[in-house]
Amino acid sequence: MNAPLSASDVPHGFTFAATHCGLKRSRLDLGILISETPAAAAAVFTTNQVVAPSVVASRTHLRKSRNRIRGVIVNSGNANCCTRVDGYPASVAMASKVAAELGDLDPTQILVCSTGVIGAPLHIEKILEAVPQLVRDRKVEAGAFEELARAIMTTDTHPKWAAAKCRIDGKQVRVLGCAKGSGMIEPNLATMLAFIATDAAISPALLSRALKAAAGTTFNSITVDGDTSTNDTVAVLANGQSGARTISKVGGADYKSFFAALERVCQSLALAIVEDGEGAQRVIEIEVRGASSDRAADRIARRIANSPLVKTAFAGADPNWGRILAAAGRSGVLFDWQRTDIWIAGVAVCRHGREHSFDEAAAHKKMLAKYVPIRLNLHSGKGSARIWTCDFTVEYVHINSSYRT
Amino acid sequence: MNAPLSASDVPHGFTFAATHCGLKRSRLDLGILISETPAAAAAVFTTNQVVAPSVVASRTHLRKSRNRIRGVIVNSGNANCCTRVDGYPASVAMASKVAAELGDLDPTQILVCSTGVIGAPLHIEKILEAVPQLVRDRKVEAGAFEELARAIMTTDTHPKWAAAKCRIDGKQVRVLGCAKGSGMIEPNLATMLAFIATDAAISPALLSRALKAAAGTTFNSITVDGDTSTNDTVAVLANGQSGARTISKVGGADYKSFFAALERVCQSLALAIVEDGEGAQRVIEIEVRGASSDRAADRIARRIANSPLVKTAFAGADPNWGRILAAAGRSGVLFDWQRTDIWIAGVAVCRHGREHSFDEAAAHKKMLAKYVPIRLNLHSGKGSARIWTCDFTVEYVHINSSYRT
Repeated sequence: MNAPLSASDVPHGFTFAATHCGLKRSRLDLGILISETPAAAAAVFTTNQVVAPSVVASRTHLRKSRNRIRGVIVNSGNANCCTRVDGYPASVAMASKVAAELGDLDPTQILVCSTGVIGAPLHIEKILEAVPQLVRDRKVEAGAFEELARAIMTTDTHPKWAAAKCRIDGKQVRVLGCAKGSGMIEPNLATMLAFIATDAAISPALLSRALKAAAGTTFNSITVDGDTSTNDTVAVLANGQSGARTISKVGGADYKSFFAALERVCQSLALAIVEDGEGAQRVIEIEVRGASSDRAADRIARRIANSPLVKTAFAGADPNWGRILAAAGRSGVLFDWQRTDIWIAGVAVCRHGREHSFDEAAAHKKMLAKYVPIRLNLHSGKGSARIWTCDFTVEYVHINSSYRT
Repeated sequence: MNAPLSASDVPHGFTFAATHCGLKRSRLDLGILISETPAAAAAVFTTNQVVAPSVVASRTHLRKSRNRIRGVIVNSGNANCCTRVDGYPASVAMASKVAAELGDLDPTQILVCSTGVIGAPLHIEKILEAVPQLVRDRKVEAGAFEELARAIMTTDTHPKWAAAKCRIDGKQVRVLGCAKGSGMIEPNLATMLAFIATDAAISPALLSRALKAAAGTTFNSITVDGDTSTNDTVAVLANGQSGARTISKVGGADYKSFFAALERVCQSLALAIVEDGEGAQRVIEIEVRGASSDRAADRIARRIANSPLVKTAFAGADPNWGRILAAAGRSGVLFDWQRTDIWIAGVAVCRHGREHSFDEAAAHKKMLAKYVPIRLNLHSGKGSARIWTCDFTVEYVHINSSYRT
């Protein structure tokens, strides 16, 4: 669970609101994040070819507005994807309604996201009815942001938010984000969403560069079961209301300071998603070193992270390094497995591709922790990568085999 | 379970034996398959880079003997892989001992396979002590072949064998095979082995071609969780003792007749492995049609087959087509998902990438069968592929999270 937010965590010039419009039975299911002045915006979307109309609409709006965005509207309870009737007009209607209520803005200044069941028709009228009051109710408060974080939940067991600050030119700059998704794992609940607000002053081009780099080592480095959804979206809005000078170049101290805060928020949210992975008991951090390249290390780490045999072994806290080595071996990356060393929870279990004497009972006990690292050193180069996943439990199967019928 | 074999199923000129040498507590753990005359041989091995010494030895023996082999020795209970001491000498010793007992043959005329736990030292002396009696005890009988099928089991719940016959030049030719492996799923139990004996007369080159083609549509088209093991081996020996004329060219009727029998045996064994997948309740057949190429269809079918979300949905007999479409979408193959049709258990559930009205209760009931087909038509070309997998149950997690510690 997150610590409660305080007023000082909230970036200047942003407002938030959430409500229950009726897509879910009784919980919050609709929210907005608004910048009171035009903000630079950047976003990364799902790489799945099957994309929801909301993703298509948001991409179009970013392009047409030249990445100058005023806000985001998001609903949970329905993904508005693969429905019998084309869902695109509904996505555009959601954005248009918010734009109108904010005072006749262009609809392309609003991004739109949906998350929930795939294939069921969206009751757009419930959303449109709720928007006017939602826009009137928007507040600067941290509590309103926490409600937004609740309104985007689907199978999440708790809301997820994270805040960070940095100093630019002596002035404080705030970065605040929320996310949903019990992993990259629920195409059916249309998975991973994250919204980040910051009062930094930065161009859309630099912001986009920072988001892509930060997402690469955080949101794109977590996996629960290798499934990506149709609706995944990470969006960041930067409105410059901190009063700090504009971040002007990639190499500079201002950019580095801002990037560190952005990456911290992204990493906290990404790890919160893995921790809350369906049925997960523990987070597994897989670090591969000594690969021929970073890309090679990344492929090996992902193959290990998505191996059901590795993940079930971790559910039983079993230091079963043979499964880890075998998963690396079938990654498609060439390496000399007879030079490979493996550590589980800090215990050396494999040296030069062969068993290394270790106390199995002690290793088992260490693996019962909430957070368990796996380290591989291939001794074949300088490439490295780090991926986070969770263990694969009986509870995961229960959740995913019974949730619809 | 298989029907019992009869004497007429056994190819001429082959003998078999199995024994308990002490690698397992009390069950059969060592077996041989011998051709009484030199046989043409072909084999396909694991594509995992991490390979057991037995695979290295068998590859070397095939090359050095120019694919003229007299037999196979196989042990279960220990994979002789990733052990602290180099396992290669032990694999060679197993082959050498059989070769010596058969009357001073060259060791390279014997193939060697091991299956069982990875990383634990192999007690080679137990095997070597048992070989003389094993060789003396070899018999022509079908019952001896069934014992061999039992001796190679690890987590398998029952032995697996299959027989087929064909006519070449008016003479009967027999193909008889056995296999082990509760799926391609147990790197730790060093998975999938299959041995096939036939009294067809065929050159090693043609035999190799036939085996590769037959394995492609059978053993290489099954998957339980996408993990390949370090020891996977499929070997076929053809000794020509049927008296039928030598199969001489790929296009001819003789080859076609033999290939059909070989493929039938391979398919029976492959499906038996999937059916016996750890914790499996049902076999899922995934057929993709209308892809731009066979290769594209294969990639999509495999992605669906290895999606934990699809497999858990089938455990619950949930006609959750959204997960199937989303898995296809992230296969890396370009296709127009808005033209895609999907059927589950014969029920049309998705038309043009959108929900198609269907009776969910009736579909659920059909999905409770032992064998459930999924069909996709992408309407984008003439490529097709077929892959078999099993559902992903709570029992799978139980087996794999608790088996060692």
